[in-house]
Amino acid sequence: MTARISGVGGVKSGVGATPAPSTEVILIQPGTIVIGIDPSLRGTGWGVVRVADPEPVHLASGTIRCPERWERTRCLGEIGKEIAGIMARFQPTECACEGLFFAQNLQTALIMGEARGAALAAVAVAGIPVHEIAPRKVKQAIVGYGAAQKIAVAKMVQRRLSLEELPGPDAADALALAIAFIQERRRPAFATAKRI
Amino acid sequence: MTARISGVGGVKSGVGATPAPSTEVILIQPGTIVIGIDPSLRGTGWGVVRVADPEPVHLASGTIRCPERWERTRCLGEIGKEIAGIMARFQPTECACEGLFFAQNLQTALIMGEARGAALAAVAVAGIPVHEIAPRKVKQAIVGYGAAQKIAVAKMVQRRLSLEELPGPDAADALALAIAFIQERRRPAFATAKRI
Repeated sequence: MTARISGVGGVKSGVGATPAPSTEVILIQPGTIVIGIDPSLRGTGWGVVRVADPEPVHLASGTIRCPERWERTRCLGEIGKEIAGIMARFQPTECACEGLFFAQNLQTALIMGEARGAALAAVAVAGIPVHEIAPRKVKQAIVGYGAAQKIAVAKMVQRRLSLEELPGPDAADALALAIAFIQERRRPAFATAKRI
Repeated sequence: MTARISGVGGVKSGVGATPAPSTEVILIQPGTIVIGIDPSLRGTGWGVVRVADPEPVHLASGTIRCPERWERTRCLGEIGKEIAGIMARFQPTECACEGLFFAQNLQTALIMGEARGAALAAVAVAGIPVHEIAPRKVKQAIVGYGAAQKIAVAKMVQRRLSLEELPGPDAADALALAIAFIQERRRPAFATAKRI
């Protein structure tokens, strides 16, 4: 039940495409710029791709690194500033973020939450929607196996985006989020991304 | 063992003042602009005061309200944008934030963390230090009793800042944070604020 999109750069006709179900899943247009973000205090991965057929095109990706010696709030400022810069440069219109469903304890949850807040506020200020996808679902979408290892995800991301080098682990996770989000939007019946 | 500060607007001489202990507590100068922030997804309190003798001068305060119908990330964007605006308008050079030591569960901690991250990133982007103070310590500093009720804190804030009206509960908490921070900096031996 794959729905292909017609439009600028589209290959198949839109006629006969499955309509979006009532869960508000909207099909994604080719040419759409999507940012994937995997927030973390010391190493926030990010990746920007453009929707295309058969695979998205990689525009840029990287990791916002904050050394251990930096105070927590300095990291938050760095994350906010960097994401704001990436938003201004690539002007994505959709954002996919890792859905956090596990933290060891309240202190960890709070710190992870702070990093997410810094990153997502910078996205939200630009007024674009943010969708969260559970890590398992991302792995399932990319590797076909929900408990896949990080390196398997990175290798598949490299292959699907035709990257010359293996992306760093954080950047690979962010790119995987963007790819998984786009994939879901093309197969709305399997959509699990949740707008937050 | 109160240390008064000499300098612009200062009253007492700095001679004989207790030197700052090695915990890096630096005495605060009169005229310094301090912002207090009490972050929360639906109602972030903020207050800006100027250090003066005998009490700080209230410059502005309020609450960033985000209706329940707003998505989480929309709230984060609003918090980030509003705090950035307040930073630009009043140019504070110190920030006091509520130290969070309690959350009911991981999900709550994550959401509280996100609100904190959105607010503190906007502060940190401006490059100013953020200090966190535990809620109990704030109450102790303002009312003299760590388990004081919110209304008692608000009334004392109103009195100490000579406000015509009782501040709203979130704004009052934020102003209390700023006052408590300034008070600690004037009595460094009792300092508990922790730079984060």
